[in-house]
Amino acid sequence: MAVFASGSYDPDSITKYSSITEQIPRRSIQDPETYQLIKDSKPVVITDTNLVTSASKWDLEYLNKNLGDGLFYVYTSNDNRFKYFDNKRAEKCKSFVTPSERHHVTFLQFLQMLKRCARTKEKVYLQQTLNDSVGTNIVTDFLQFNWDWVNKCQAAYGWGSLSSNLLLIGLEGNITPVHYDEQENFFAQISGHKRCLLFSPDQFDCLYPHPVAHPCDRQSQVNIANPDYKKFPRFRNAHATEAIVGPGDVLYIPMYWWHQIESLSSRIPPVTISVNFWYRGTPLPDVIQYPLSPQQRVSVMRNVEKMLAAALGDAEKVGELLRTMVEGRYTQ
Amino acid sequence: MAVFASGSYDPDSITKYSSITEQIPRRSIQDPETYQLIKDSKPVVITDTNLVTSASKWDLEYLNKNLGDGLFYVYTSNDNRFKYFDNKRAEKCKSFVTPSERHHVTFLQFLQMLKRCARTKEKVYLQQTLNDSVGTNIVTDFLQFNWDWVNKCQAAYGWGSLSSNLLLIGLEGNITPVHYDEQENFFAQISGHKRCLLFSPDQFDCLYPHPVAHPCDRQSQVNIANPDYKKFPRFRNAHATEAIVGPGDVLYIPMYWWHQIESLSSRIPPVTISVNFWYRGTPLPDVIQYPLSPQQRVSVMRNVEKMLAAALGDAEKVGELLRTMVEGRYTQ
Ligand SMILES: [Zn+2]
Ligand SMILES: [Zn+2]
Repeated sequence: MAVFASGSYDPDSITKYSSITEQIPRRSIQDPETYQLIKDSKPVVITDTNLVTSASKWDLEYLNKNLGDGLFYVYTSNDNRFKYFDNKRAEKCKSFVTPSERHHVTFLQFLQMLKRCARTKEKVYLQQTLNDSVGTNIVTDFLQFNWDWVNKCQAAYGWGSLSSNLLLIGLEGNITPVHYDEQENFFAQISGHKRCLLFSPDQFDCLYPHPVAHPCDRQSQVNIANPDYKKFPRFRNAHATEAIVGPGDVLYIPMYWWHQIESLSSRIPPVTISVNFWYRGTPLPDVIQYPLSPQQRVSVMRNVEKMLAAALGDAEKVGELLRTMVEGRYTQ
Repeated sequence: MAVFASGSYDPDSITKYSSITEQIPRRSIQDPETYQLIKDSKPVVITDTNLVTSASKWDLEYLNKNLGDGLFYVYTSNDNRFKYFDNKRAEKCKSFVTPSERHHVTFLQFLQMLKRCARTKEKVYLQQTLNDSVGTNIVTDFLQFNWDWVNKCQAAYGWGSLSSNLLLIGLEGNITPVHYDEQENFFAQISGHKRCLLFSPDQFDCLYPHPVAHPCDRQSQVNIANPDYKKFPRFRNAHATEAIVGPGDVLYIPMYWWHQIESLSSRIPPVTISVNFWYRGTPLPDVIQYPLSPQQRVSVMRNVEKMLAAALGDAEKVGELLRTMVEGRYTQ
């Protein structure tokens, strides 16, 4: 029973990246391997979860009727990249030029922005946490998500609580550039196709994230479509694993795994729609095993950067202190 | 009343260093400036403390008669440099070649080693914490140190407790290379002359100390008589302040100030004799003022290095993690 709009994507529109070396496995909800992969914090596309089947009817018209009069965060960008930034930090840091603009608009205004985009090079991306301002039909759809399955997963892997569901509505070509999240994520595709590139957490050194106090914390500085190898030489060693997800697919993005998500070209439907299920991570074990996992190393580095900013009373001074600690002392 | 053996040193024997730009002030115990300098954690030679006047009669013969049958730490070196190393760490780290050899010998054996040195290029340095195994005459001399004055200083500056008194007996040309101590030090000269070069704690970046977990923790990697500017380019910016101390002089070496101490040439007396008075530092204030002092910055860096070694379960892995944190992220 094909409940999701079929649609398709244009294979010629897919950018070539040198760093892709393998494909993320696609597995059924029945397949024991699915659960071994999740347990091992490895990405997997799960094909038949029915996680968001109740949302398969979501299109722009239905959402416009039912999302309600609330305001939605909509980002606009002059290129197709929507690099995340922390809005509060961006406002404090006057030298920071935001890579996209954030707007707070009604759904109808968003639809008008979409129309304008057809005539310009501007791209637009709605990214809004689902909250209780939505209409009753959306609430009903939401309650019919396959909570039974995700709750069982959450319990089985000892994840923390569900922190939020983010609704994403994007245009073809929209890219969320490489970054990692500090949460477990079931990324559920509702409409259109997205190409997902994932890099394992042991590639921190290849991906050069911004300093922790930067507005683009957790985002790689590398534009992987056009890498600056002079500034980021170790990106040559990076290798991604890839999946194209379509309606009904759920991609498990493990915590601290780097990912870039790209909306693929298609005319029908005109947009991609996805919903994130973000869970807090598993609490640390009482007894730490050595050597640390790549994820634990990332956490240690984040804590050192935060601690130094606090100790020095100024995040801007962290770099100088770290350089003094390293140069000529821990260099080879 | 000249209680100390006069003696002298050979001015021609003094190595030229490019980094010396000023002289440490010499001030009387009566001079209010002495106390302002100590309060400001600035070095000063105090000329008439009578701190170790009771030890002015100490020479090799008197010490041999009165030091007792205990064992003394004596270091031998094939060049004239006696770079400090932590013996326990050196034993654990098999790749580490000790810069000098440590022996545990009677005072008579030390005197025999001194005689052998006259015929070879080997140098010898006695460095022994004074303890209660010494004979009664030495105890009497020790009790007649000017405790009244040092105790008043300790109280006035809020220093912690006296941690130890180190007796140093060295040969002309012996060098204790550049390092810092984590304690306040009244360095009391008893016999012969020593040249002391001090660098302020804000020159950490110019002096490239070994990693904290290294056997030579707190020691600069730079040989200031023959600097490797390729490995240590910022040493070009280093600038030292200098004093030559003779019998009866007390040099205040503030905590975290870098220092190199060199025994100067003279035939009479044939050795230099000094005693360190080491005090634990002032406890941190409840409210930290920003920006941090250079001393506090050093302390923060030491803590990060220790914390990372503990978090990673292996001090050998600190360098790689710090480089990953810095390279391409906190570099300019
Ligand atoms: Zn993400
Ligand atoms: Zn010292």
